[in-house]
Amino acid sequence: MSKNSVSNSVIRRLPRYYRFLGELEKQGTVRISSRELSEKMALTASQIRQDLNCFGGFGQQGYGYNVSELREKIGEILGVHSGNPIILIGAGNLGRTIATHMSFAERGFRLIGIFDIDPKLSGVEIGDLKVRNSIELERFCIENSPTAAVLCIPKEAAAEIAKRLQSYGIKAFWNFSHFDLRSENSDVIVENVHLGDSLMTLAYGLNSMNDTEK
Amino acid sequence: MSKNSVSNSVIRRLPRYYRFLGELEKQGTVRISSRELSEKMALTASQIRQDLNCFGGFGQQGYGYNVSELREKIGEILGVHSGNPIILIGAGNLGRTIATHMSFAERGFRLIGIFDIDPKLSGVEIGDLKVRNSIELERFCIENSPTAAVLCIPKEAAAEIAKRLQSYGIKAFWNFSHFDLRSENSDVIVENVHLGDSLMTLAYGLNSMNDTEK
Repeated sequence: MSKNSVSNSVIRRLPRYYRFLGELEKQGTVRISSRELSEKMALTASQIRQDLNCFGGFGQQGYGYNVSELREKIGEILGVHSGNPIILIGAGNLGRTIATHMSFAERGFRLIGIFDIDPKLSGVEIGDLKVRNSIELERFCIENSPTAAVLCIPKEAAAEIAKRLQSYGIKAFWNFSHFDLRSENSDVIVENVHLGDSLMTLAYGLNSMNDTEK
Repeated sequence: MSKNSVSNSVIRRLPRYYRFLGELEKQGTVRISSRELSEKMALTASQIRQDLNCFGGFGQQGYGYNVSELREKIGEILGVHSGNPIILIGAGNLGRTIATHMSFAERGFRLIGIFDIDPKLSGVEIGDLKVRNSIELERFCIENSPTAAVLCIPKEAAAEIAKRLQSYGIKAFWNFSHFDLRSENSDVIVENVHLGDSLMTLAYGLNSMNDTEK
């Protein structure tokens, strides 16, 4: 089965498998059954077997999964070592946090540039990088060929900058602006992160619980 | 139909409806058909009708939805004005960004306290609040009865502090630590935010695209 025919919902679960298996590896667990893994991950064992079968299946009947091997293979599928060059746009609070907090290198990316339109931020150090002015974007992209960008900018600016970046060769967006980017063509992929949506879901859950208690 | 019987996937889409309707309202749109809304949101029109029917259905055949009215109703369902008191644990980069960047008040919460174990951070101002030392947590919770907590702490600390906070009456967790909190009982709800998972999904998409081009 080719990678591209794997369903989106399976793909979305892979990072979670990868994380859980990493934990198990750290704890010294050598192998695990789909039942044990299902208990840890709050999925059904058959779900887990189905998911992993999409990629050829790694388990052995009666033996379970080799933790390191399975983790390594899922990492390969996700491309965690692929080091795609990525740039970050917007060096405000959020941008700075993402730049310093996120292990890009463990997740398939290499952060190679940080940009902001505010000239006062030019030269400010964030981790190993110095903030550059956004006017340098085009030249930087020609010289360094980043393929992905993190957008930590206000929503008013998101659509325009995304368009500009696409013309500079950016193919993937990790979008934190409060604006749903949509890829108009299949040459571009977008991950919209809406933290506010997650918070509202929590509010709903809490309020439902309170209603039930009344 | 009672709120509690609405499926989780519908609930997860509500914040997105709320956001899109807010945009439309700002642009001065008074009413919208499910077909127009579906184009904007990249959902099918029948999906939208189904979703909104879960809550009694707001549309009128041939007229569409009144944008402000629908937004207001979805906001009510989500409880965006419910102002649940919430505290934030961990005043590092991420915690500070969440505290200043997130409009809690528009999403059903009221941020009333920020805590950190580092005594050097005590008294530091973040927005309207001053960081308190974590030893004050119990007293603060008794006096102010927060019902929710944001966890912006290392994963090693997450399980222990979550347990402690539950004993102080916290019922909802917005968890940014790299650790899947699981509610062991139905009295507690958790939203785990794993930004790294989202980034890995992007890596997968980008790598799949590159593979196809080869």
